[in-house]
Amino acid sequence: MKLYNENNPAPNPRRVRIFLAEKGISIPFVHIPMRQGAHKSPEFMLKNSLGQVPVLELDDGSTLSESIAICRYLEELHPAPALFGEDAWQRARVEMWTRRIEFGLMSRIGAVWINTHKYTAHLGTQYKDFGEASRDRAVKAMHWLNGELQDREFLALERYSMADIVALTTLDFGAFIGIDMPAELEHLGAWHARVSARPSAVA
Amino acid sequence: MKLYNENNPAPNPRRVRIFLAEKGISIPFVHIPMRQGAHKSPEFMLKNSLGQVPVLELDDGSTLSESIAICRYLEELHPAPALFGEDAWQRARVEMWTRRIEFGLMSRIGAVWINTHKYTAHLGTQYKDFGEASRDRAVKAMHWLNGELQDREFLALERYSMADIVALTTLDFGAFIGIDMPAELEHLGAWHARVSARPSAVA
Repeated sequence: MKLYNENNPAPNPRRVRIFLAEKGISIPFVHIPMRQGAHKSPEFMLKNSLGQVPVLELDDGSTLSESIAICRYLEELHPAPALFGEDAWQRARVEMWTRRIEFGLMSRIGAVWINTHKYTAHLGTQYKDFGEASRDRAVKAMHWLNGELQDREFLALERYSMADIVALTTLDFGAFIGIDMPAELEHLGAWHARVSARPSAVA
Repeated sequence: MKLYNENNPAPNPRRVRIFLAEKGISIPFVHIPMRQGAHKSPEFMLKNSLGQVPVLELDDGSTLSESIAICRYLEELHPAPALFGEDAWQRARVEMWTRRIEFGLMSRIGAVWINTHKYTAHLGTQYKDFGEASRDRAVKAMHWLNGELQDREFLALERYSMADIVALTTLDFGAFIGIDMPAELEHLGAWHARVSARPSAVA
């Protein structure tokens, strides 16, 4: 088994790296230099027809893309600690929160990235007005998240889960492209400090 | 247990209705009239702070939102037929394909809906150029999907799965807002006819 990975600040490969660190699993990485377009090479497109990393490849050559699908697969092979939850309700809660972060926050931060950032300008037309509106919406989602976190330590469960990994990688990517968490969001800030203090966060 | 639902063409509540029909499960529905803004009422926002349907409510008052989280929870209570896959690899495949459809197709169709449609004009600023570009990108994703379906009957597995439900509800919603599948996409068309012929598709 090996993982095609890129060690840039992109949130999706980092989700898998943090997940592996939390599990204490080690998988050989194959570096895909995205700045050189290696993820769009004909060879790599055979592994993922969308040309995206990460991709997990099994020893028989089967491939799996989408960071959450990869982590979910690895969770079944290495059940402890359970990062997707320990029973049906917990697993549903982790799923709900993972999706809330992806659709409510990541999609907006991604829209800022694609439509306003200098690093993505060469990829195609940027819709600047839409991108700037997405920035405001991302910050609005952070305010919502701050309210949700006012009475608990982690997003989905009483302990750390995949949903926290998704939120951490999303917010850190937002900061990388200049969308900072407003300092007055104390519950979100405390949560961010808590999950960033875990050894896995350096992954 | 009850499900807060809206019988409009929105894809997310329909996912759950088709899932229930495939499983042969019956849950009492509570109708949330979205045109009257019932999903944004203070009362409903206590059930889902994002003000979206569907929401599953348990007898103890616990609530769960996000259509896929709801279906995943119900899958654990009613395992057969397994719509999320029967082993670790199948479950990973279903997850991968569900996400590919959501991020590659649904996000674009949603962007057309929010940014160009007359029914959503009252919700806020519409970024028309971005919306029209999203239309082209949605059609491009259909071409990609057509290629993926050239040698198989269903999206993720050798049989019908949650990924097919997500794709069906997405494409039908696209058609509802005027984004038709190009007629030349024969594999996608054949797949669409196949899944639409199932009794669950009327849900």
